[in-house]
Amino acid sequence: MPPSSRHGAPPEATEAEASVVSFETGAVTSTGRVLPAEEPVGIIYGGVPFAVMMVTPSHLEDFAYGFSLTEGVILDRRDIRGIRIEQAENGLQCSIDLVPERLHQHLARKRALSGRTGCGLCGIDDLASLPHARAPEGEAPRIAVGSVRRALDQMEHWQPLNDRTRAVHAAAWAGIDGEVVTVREDVGRHNALDKLIGALVRTDADPRQGFAIVTSRCSFELVEKIAAFGARTLVAVSAPTARALARARELDITLAGIARRDSMTVFHGLERLLQQESAR
Amino acid sequence: MPPSSRHGAPPEATEAEASVVSFETGAVTSTGRVLPAEEPVGIIYGGVPFAVMMVTPSHLEDFAYGFSLTEGVILDRRDIRGIRIEQAENGLQCSIDLVPERLHQHLARKRALSGRTGCGLCGIDDLASLPHARAPEGEAPRIAVGSVRRALDQMEHWQPLNDRTRAVHAAAWAGIDGEVVTVREDVGRHNALDKLIGALVRTDADPRQGFAIVTSRCSFELVEKIAAFGARTLVAVSAPTARALARARELDITLAGIARRDSMTVFHGLERLLQQESAR
Repeated sequence: MPPSSRHGAPPEATEAEASVVSFETGAVTSTGRVLPAEEPVGIIYGGVPFAVMMVTPSHLEDFAYGFSLTEGVILDRRDIRGIRIEQAENGLQCSIDLVPERLHQHLARKRALSGRTGCGLCGIDDLASLPHARAPEGEAPRIAVGSVRRALDQMEHWQPLNDRTRAVHAAAWAGIDGEVVTVREDVGRHNALDKLIGALVRTDADPRQGFAIVTSRCSFELVEKIAAFGARTLVAVSAPTARALARARELDITLAGIARRDSMTVFHGLERLLQQESAR
Repeated sequence: MPPSSRHGAPPEATEAEASVVSFETGAVTSTGRVLPAEEPVGIIYGGVPFAVMMVTPSHLEDFAYGFSLTEGVILDRRDIRGIRIEQAENGLQCSIDLVPERLHQHLARKRALSGRTGCGLCGIDDLASLPHARAPEGEAPRIAVGSVRRALDQMEHWQPLNDRTRAVHAAAWAGIDGEVVTVREDVGRHNALDKLIGALVRTDADPRQGFAIVTSRCSFELVEKIAAFGARTLVAVSAPTARALARARELDITLAGIARRDSMTVFHGLERLLQQESAR
């Protein structure tokens, strides 16, 4: 993976001087603190601006692949012919070159809608357009509880940006055995997962042969992204929302939350986490 | 403030059955967990859809005021004549009735742009459209360190939804003396702040006579929202991003982060936090 600096991208973190003020004594102490970067990245398909995302500028090609897949713009990594990332006046420009068929479909979908639209949900301005990933086919993999624990332990050592900043999210992918394969970090939890999915898509990873862990709460969009990738198991370090659980049930995605050192709380698919233990 | 149930809105949290799995022993224990709700809310001005936001369905009128202000759709609470919140097929519809002049301006701005746009930044599809709140005028208020500490202590008791779910963010407003005036909660940290700002705008609160605390990391958009409201001091329980600090410096907004029981780290405007102590 080429480092993002190849593209003249800004650093993923910068040091700032700050002052720690004690509430007890009022004492003021100078300190240095490494702050994660957050850059506007304009996503452009076929020369036409699609969205501006606030992203930590690392692994931007992975982000481009993952975002394009989870937004439904591409179905496969081969739909992207190339990616060009450049520094623009107000941020970074990420120009994604799609194969003609996919670009045509994307622009046709784009033209069918009009007007300034908003966010929260990418590019959706009306309720009828809510994303609905199709339920992945076949049976979800059985992941042993011990594998989840192993992956949780391992991913702590795969977060270099968080080690420096204590302020970014991570998304990890582990094999069925719990060995961590890839981790991506970002100030935004959605972005971290998009970067992870992009990295996996680019290496033709099998979404059925592993599971994802996110260091954040689990909103419904994270479940949608997991489903768009075709994976079936999502573990979150914090709690899911009610809607995230509802979608995990609909899509039959194994969903665990509040995954800590000593335990996790399983919200859907418990039997798949327990069966493996005895099957081994 | 009318309860959101008046509008037939769904509950702000629901109970789910789950299973705690111990990593040590493998023991499985049934548990109940209250999960925060996350509902799609379609924002509609003058009958024209603008955005769909994922929001915890409480204080939706406040959200409508705050979002409209921080998005630059309204300049003043009097720009809104009324708000209607209804349950629609796929979520909630929030129809905002603007005064004719403001609606005209909004629709003119909307028509000037075209095409499906994306998110990350609300409704922005190209880098030239990045939001830039104007620097609030005049001198920023001096807030004593002790006032910040008081507000931090108090706001812990103002988070009923978080008490139930341990999974939502809060944004609080405190007077110069540190007395907490209002707190709003949401699964999304941007939404919590928009709800807070909306509640303050609706009651004609003076943005210069207090400060905001958010329980989250501080992204640059939170700084933009504070500036759009006209406030000058923002305290975050976690760290700011590099861009959030850069904008706080540009806008001369006092910015503190990593605000805990024992200390906070001040990134900009330290002198304003210290002067007040001696001036009292």
